[in-house]
Amino acid sequence: MNNYNYKLDFKVRDYECDIQGVVNNSVYQNYLEHTRHEYLLDIGIDFAKLAAEKINLVVVRAELDYKFPLRSGDEFWVGLNFERVSQIRFGFLQDIYRKPDDKLIVKGRIIGTALNERGRPFLPKVIEDVLGNS
Amino acid sequence: MNNYNYKLDFKVRDYECDIQGVVNNSVYQNYLEHTRHEYLLDIGIDFAKLAAEKINLVVVRAELDYKFPLRSGDEFWVGLNFERVSQIRFGFLQDIYRKPDDKLIVKGRIIGTALNERGRPFLPKVIEDVLGNS
Amino acid sequence: MNNYNYKLDFKVRDYECDIQGVVNNSVYQNYLEHTRHEYLLDIGIDFAKLAAEKINLVVVRAELDYKFPLRSGDEFWVGLNFERVSQIRFGFLQDIYRKPDDKLIVKGRIIGTALNERGRPFLPKVIEDVLGNS
Amino acid sequence: MNNYNYKLDFKVRDYECDIQGVVNNSVYQNYLEHTRHEYLLDIGIDFAKLAAEKINLVVVRAELDYKFPLRSGDEFWVGLNFERVSQIRFGFLQDIYRKPDDKLIVKGRIIGTALNERGRPFLPKVIEDVLGNS
Repeated sequence: MNNYNYKLDFKVRDYECDIQGVVNNSVYQNYLEHTRHEYLLDIGIDFAKLAAEKINLVVVRAELDYKFPLRSGDEFWVGLNFERVSQIRFGFLQDIYRKPDDKLIVKGRIIGTALNERGRPFLPKVIEDVLGNS
Repeated sequence: MNNYNYKLDFKVRDYECDIQGVVNNSVYQNYLEHTRHEYLLDIGIDFAKLAAEKINLVVVRAELDYKFPLRSGDEFWVGLNFERVSQIRFGFLQDIYRKPDDKLIVKGRIIGTALNERGRPFLPKVIEDVLGNS
Repeated sequence: MNNYNYKLDFKVRDYECDIQGVVNNSVYQNYLEHTRHEYLLDIGIDFAKLAAEKINLVVVRAELDYKFPLRSGDEFWVGLNFERVSQIRFGFLQDIYRKPDDKLIVKGRIIGTALNERGRPFLPKVIEDVLGNS
Repeated sequence: MNNYNYKLDFKVRDYECDIQGVVNNSVYQNYLEHTRHEYLLDIGIDFAKLAAEKINLVVVRAELDYKFPLRSGDEFWVGLNFERVSQIRFGFLQDIYRKPDDKLIVKGRIIGTALNERGRPFLPKVIEDVLGNS
């Protein structure tokens, strides 16, 4: 739980909760996406700027294990690790923990790549530099 | 592509698209959820009514393969198959296809269970009846 | 109730409902936006294509009267009238009615304009042509 | 700009932005709602707990003036004033300002009431106590 490249704090907003009184399943993907983009910004990669330059970072696969629901008022944090998956794919291991008891809420694994202007997958140099030969 | 228990038609709404001009990754989960709930209604299971009775159908795992993005104006359909996964778990195989060319957009596998009022997993009789011994 | 330029049918999706078990207030704006964009497409104006050409149709003011909530499973329709408000502004009168009893749910008035590439308000010729001298 | 009962800080999340590259109109209502609920919690009124007790705080009218759009990466704050509007209605004046230049983004006026279990409007004592005779 202490071995993350990056952590981001959040608080549940009531409009994110659904009929069951818990955060809707799709909203966790919003939390994970925001965490990825903040992490990328932190290491010098701007998702929105890349999109404007027609370089699109895209998700090709998402695996989400829902362990326990978040509720109205809950505070939580997302931990993230970034790793190379293949020549042209990278992966984010992203876990959501409730505060203050660090209860595991969601375990996520998000695989992505980048598409150039013609839609071809590639790894931009900024990302190669971060992933190195790891 | 013709072997689905249930199919539902949709059209992309512009507010579902993001900076990249395509449907945001999290929105596909909304499409899949709506299809599951419509399917369940169709076979006599009302998600909202169950929630009001403190029986919560919940997702425990989601696997989503993003094959190709949907864009503003696209029409599409979701195909769904429902199957037993274990004593207390069921699965939805859900695929999204663009119209009119039936291009595969997303392949999804959503595993769920039901929780009783005390949060214990079980399979309600209405679902047992549908899944039978298959 | 019969004097609308355009009507569009919808059905509430469970993920649009919140803790109170009703459609969240912000979601009605999604319904209204989708109806406006479908209406505009119907008369030959493509919001997304205009955006790609750096002509942005924007909302400058929204007034929404919430009369009665929509719930899980409700079907409804949105009626729309389009009118000139000033030299550079247009208005959408948009009302939401539940089916099948035509109960009034929301009365909306959305004022908009178009912005050119430099952010200056103007009315594109396609819109002038629709609004005429009315 | 300094005369608000309550202020809350936010940062735009990329999934909140739409095809035009700006925060979607409906999302500002999410920001305003979250600010209202946090303010109410701050003065001892829990929206979610009230909903569970069948007392529903509801919006009856929203007026939103969109002055300037927020974009990816923007930080901003929402200022809120709370006031009595009538015997059974209260109002929130809520303005959104971009940081760090305090540019006005949205001016909002949200009128609400509370509904008891039978759907009748009333003002709960906790709210009467806050609004006093003002």
